[in-house]
Amino acid sequence: MEFDLELSIDVLRRTPAVLREMLLGAADPWARGTEGPETFSPFDVVGHLIDGEETDWVPRARLILARGEARFEPYDRFRHKGRNAGRSLGSLLDEFARLREANLETLRGWRLTAAELDLPGHHPALGRVTLRQLLAAWVVHDLGHIAQAARVMAKQYKDAVGPWVPFMPVLTDHEVPRS
Amino acid sequence: MEFDLELSIDVLRRTPAVLREMLLGAADPWARGTEGPETFSPFDVVGHLIDGEETDWVPRARLILARGEARFEPYDRFRHKGRNAGRSLGSLLDEFARLREANLETLRGWRLTAAELDLPGHHPALGRVTLRQLLAAWVVHDLGHIAQAARVMAKQYKDAVGPWVPFMPVLTDHEVPRS
Repeated sequence: MEFDLELSIDVLRRTPAVLREMLLGAADPWARGTEGPETFSPFDVVGHLIDGEETDWVPRARLILARGEARFEPYDRFRHKGRNAGRSLGSLLDEFARLREANLETLRGWRLTAAELDLPGHHPALGRVTLRQLLAAWVVHDLGHIAQAARVMAKQYKDAVGPWVPFMPVLTDHEVPRS
Repeated sequence: MEFDLELSIDVLRRTPAVLREMLLGAADPWARGTEGPETFSPFDVVGHLIDGEETDWVPRARLILARGEARFEPYDRFRHKGRNAGRSLGSLLDEFARLREANLETLRGWRLTAAELDLPGHHPALGRVTLRQLLAAWVVHDLGHIAQAARVMAKQYKDAVGPWVPFMPVLTDHEVPRS
């Protein structure tokens, strides 16, 4: 599938509601469980997505569109840990929805042309990337973290399913953490 | 985490709305893409979950509660392929929500005791399982297929992200299909 701006926005606009349905009011065993040390709980996933709204995707797109050198800042994967200590999951879900809505309004407002989507930026680890690739990565990043939240919840029941483990691949995905 | 009936129902009741937010009105490249031959699209995932409501989880629980021999029928993973040819995704999402709501009403109505949750059934491949394990597997099965729908959507953009692939583990999960 080729990159398509409208189809990308259609996924990006859904993510806050998907996470709200999965997580709003969920008890701590679901919301705060992890896959092991240094891995994200569903609560952490929402915090990490907020960090992306504030520091990553649209700020990087802005840098590319400014047509300067466009060297991205690294994405701090643990910024949310300190930032959200003491916050409720409900307030994070609300905040994520507000930030995402504003960022999509910004994105739509740019009315990007194919030539603009080809503009380059410089990723600290990956080197040259285009605006089109950045926006595709934003979509994939969302979907990867939705999958992660569901997987992490599922793993809380790994013992409870007893002999069903081999029939439930989600329970043995990422036994060595990959994200 | 130990099995908990209320916490299980809380996940099960969310799944139709999660999938609705992810998929209702989604264009075919998102809804009908797969990870390769014999793998499920998000459309197929909803059909497979409907099959589970009609033929698997509650029917198996009923068999266990009848305290007979409780030998489960195998879960036909491809029943939905023929059943739903020509159906719209919206109508499948509605049907899944209706079936799930009715099945949760049945489950709540049983007011299961700890002793009932320990009752055994006989799985065609896994052997002896308890009602408690069956209900835990229902929860994990939902979450695994939510993760799968998100992963399959993400993979449609595997080429579009360009150099980002190694930073997006969801794009390289299940390179050999596992479910």
